[in-house]
Amino acid sequence: MGTRRIKWVLSLLLLALLPEAFAGVLDNRIDPVCDLPDGLVREIQGYQKTVNDIVSRIVDGEFAGKTWQSLSELVDTFGARLAGSEQLEKAIDYVIDGMKRDGLENVHTENASVPHWVRGYESAQLVAPFKKNLPLLGLGTTVGTPRGGIIADVIAVESFKEFEAFTPDQVKGKIVVFVPPWQGYGKTVAYRSHGASVAAKKGAAATLIRSITPFSIGSPHTGVQDYEDGVRKIPTACITVEDAEMILRKYRRGETLTIHLEMEDRNLEPFISRNSIAELVGTTYTNTSVVVVSGHLDSWDVGVGAMDDGGGALISWKALTYLKAMGLRPRRTIRAILWTGEELGLWGGQAYREAHQANEKEEFNFFFESDIGTFEPEGLDFSGNKEAECIFREIVKLMTPLNATQFETPTDGGPDISHWTSRGFPGASLINKNEKYFWFHHSAGDSMAVEDPRHLDKCAALWAAAAYVVADLSVPMPKDVRDV
Amino acid sequence: MGTRRIKWVLSLLLLALLPEAFAGVLDNRIDPVCDLPDGLVREIQGYQKTVNDIVSRIVDGEFAGKTWQSLSELVDTFGARLAGSEQLEKAIDYVIDGMKRDGLENVHTENASVPHWVRGYESAQLVAPFKKNLPLLGLGTTVGTPRGGIIADVIAVESFKEFEAFTPDQVKGKIVVFVPPWQGYGKTVAYRSHGASVAAKKGAAATLIRSITPFSIGSPHTGVQDYEDGVRKIPTACITVEDAEMILRKYRRGETLTIHLEMEDRNLEPFISRNSIAELVGTTYTNTSVVVVSGHLDSWDVGVGAMDDGGGALISWKALTYLKAMGLRPRRTIRAILWTGEELGLWGGQAYREAHQANEKEEFNFFFESDIGTFEPEGLDFSGNKEAECIFREIVKLMTPLNATQFETPTDGGPDISHWTSRGFPGASLINKNEKYFWFHHSAGDSMAVEDPRHLDKCAALWAAAAYVVADLSVPMPKDVRDV
Repeated sequence: MGTRRIKWVLSLLLLALLPEAFAGVLDNRIDPVCDLPDGLVREIQGYQKTVNDIVSRIVDGEFAGKTWQSLSELVDTFGARLAGSEQLEKAIDYVIDGMKRDGLENVHTENASVPHWVRGYESAQLVAPFKKNLPLLGLGTTVGTPRGGIIADVIAVESFKEFEAFTPDQVKGKIVVFVPPWQGYGKTVAYRSHGASVAAKKGAAATLIRSITPFSIGSPHTGVQDYEDGVRKIPTACITVEDAEMILRKYRRGETLTIHLEMEDRNLEPFISRNSIAELVGTTYTNTSVVVVSGHLDSWDVGVGAMDDGGGALISWKALTYLKAMGLRPRRTIRAILWTGEELGLWGGQAYREAHQANEKEEFNFFFESDIGTFEPEGLDFSGNKEAECIFREIVKLMTPLNATQFETPTDGGPDISHWTSRGFPGASLINKNEKYFWFHHSAGDSMAVEDPRHLDKCAALWAAAAYVVADLSVPMPKDVRDV
Repeated sequence: MGTRRIKWVLSLLLLALLPEAFAGVLDNRIDPVCDLPDGLVREIQGYQKTVNDIVSRIVDGEFAGKTWQSLSELVDTFGARLAGSEQLEKAIDYVIDGMKRDGLENVHTENASVPHWVRGYESAQLVAPFKKNLPLLGLGTTVGTPRGGIIADVIAVESFKEFEAFTPDQVKGKIVVFVPPWQGYGKTVAYRSHGASVAAKKGAAATLIRSITPFSIGSPHTGVQDYEDGVRKIPTACITVEDAEMILRKYRRGETLTIHLEMEDRNLEPFISRNSIAELVGTTYTNTSVVVVSGHLDSWDVGVGAMDDGGGALISWKALTYLKAMGLRPRRTIRAILWTGEELGLWGGQAYREAHQANEKEEFNFFFESDIGTFEPEGLDFSGNKEAECIFREIVKLMTPLNATQFETPTDGGPDISHWTSRGFPGASLINKNEKYFWFHHSAGDSMAVEDPRHLDKCAALWAAAAYVVADLSVPMPKDVRDV
């Protein structure tokens, strides 16, 4: 998933142009001019009682604690769920069984081809000037080293810019260690994604990268990387913040550092995995104007993916379960989709989009996705046209019983739905207190210890309530879809 | 080191007895009745300018950043420094050389016998109901398993109390997993210290314990443990919070869990290590009425011991270096002692005390120790008699330029000086913003990333200023020493 961006630049610009009106336009920064028909505003406000009921029963009633319980059973039973692994496929079977047991409708899977990358034995050791094991995690799709590994001297740099000064002669055969300081995920992740190809162009033997995290307790973080077409593929892995910084300090003091790196990672033939799907079928519309609630079921192979994205997957599944148990059935179908193969490159979302493309404008009304944590919820991100935005702003105002009325646009936590939202389909993602998200992200720390039962309840309630209102409104969400 | 206790119970009791005087006695909660001679109070206040100079030159002047630099060179050069290891002895040689280069006086080492425990290959794997590696760290002095390890079923409990219900028949041959919730270090550490013997008494084959930390990113934490005399020694190690909690949940759901545990840890013959010592010799008193500033140089073998206790060791050494360079030489000798063998049981402090016992009342005036982190300093803990406490309170008031005037008693962060302070010698330890101390403690996270250059400067300045004033006062610190 991505990270939060600076928003409302245009509104701020407007303010700068109208200084004399500053006090008067302050509200517009938050709430653009909306001209919704009074009837529609009243209709949305009319859902307050239903929202209150949903919240009350999920957070304090008979469903309290059940989302955490279900998530812990899932991750404790199957552990990590890397795309291409047997564990993920077993977890998919388990989810499908569970959705049926919950009485959900049209429960089924849809195939998606995913990469089949296998982490092998991985070891890095600083062998000079002293011996130290360097805990590491190969990056998704990395190639391995030759058998027995490679032993090479180190070049350590803080940035691509600093690396530019090195000549191919200096880089040839070296292990390049990138030690970028944390500058937010979106910016810093470039070293994880592109470091290998940048270094390979100058003849490097391998790259090691400071884990992409603002905080560490000696844990390496993995993640996917992209080999550039036409550039030699070299092994690439993340090491800990602590070791990366130590290597950079020693290198800058003029010490010669040598690393023995052995990685048996392999890329196998693509694997057919499955998106897991269930519905609460609408009273009026069935396979049209569908409201999607989603998260991805696959995870990295370290930690158990309770946070990324077990929580998002579970609230999507259980939102339907709880609405159904409450006897709440909206006009439109709500469809839970638990994507597969997100971590290795949004494969489940892409396959689903392609399979449903011919009729997509008719089929889909709205997309929800949670993939930036399920900590205490604060509101919802939105993406879509101005008209839909105005409707959605009114809906978010209903979330006062959860104290989750924050609204931002555009959405920034929906990688699997970005295929649609980037083309004008309306969508939303979860705003939550996820300041520590990247501390655990793609590491052994992504576990149930991160998930709070009450916060998960609140996320499930927000998800169920918002999806219900969008699905039950008398009008569909307006959209301006661009064809590609 | 230990943890912070609830203090001033007696003062609070007094308040309860005198409710009508509440407002009037509030100050007494903080400041007990002190009846220092006016002349002494004025004398102490007269050090304000000197304290200001020390702070200004260490924090903002020519010494700014140098403590962090020295610490990073030490830990980057030698890495972890476990008692009994070659690295620790090399680090001691390096420190001794550095103290001489800094122009310190009477630089020498004094021998101390320390345990020689060696971590071998360690591996734990959950083999049923699914396979999962369980990162672990054997506890200091643990025995190993037989070659090839043991495979045994699990009993998982939250507490010793819960374990009481199990019969020896149920425990025999099992691996007992203790999963105590964090209740503060002092309380929770009992499971690390005594878990092995508690379980062995009922015939357990080994124990695995939830790491003693309030927060985790998938990192195990080590530490020392105590085998009870006459009880069979069984292998004992800490696993991560995440894995321990997962095992407890699965066990409570009635699942049968099996672990393959292999540990090649060994206890060798004791080893002669050394305390590292340097002095700034007093103008009036040399080998009498000495003021000791101290921290321990040894560390655990994971992380590099930058926090525990590289920072404490370095500020003790460098306080002397900076005072000397400033031309500040007090009446009494200030002696820096960098203890050895603290982590495996206070061996350096104990050997030093025994060697100096015959003449200790004449030799020592005051003991400083820093072993609870060198984050931003807030003040000083104190231990000693009422008269000394009153003098020390006045000294701590001088630390306003550092915003470090907090005073608490008794001291709680001085394990290596506790041999003396528990018998009535006056002593002090560092109060600092160490709320995250136990996050990194005894783990791979104990690295330079934890240490802030400016905070280290402030700690060094506080250490130098407080030691200088105590050492230069016209009067020695009063003491009531109990013989044992």
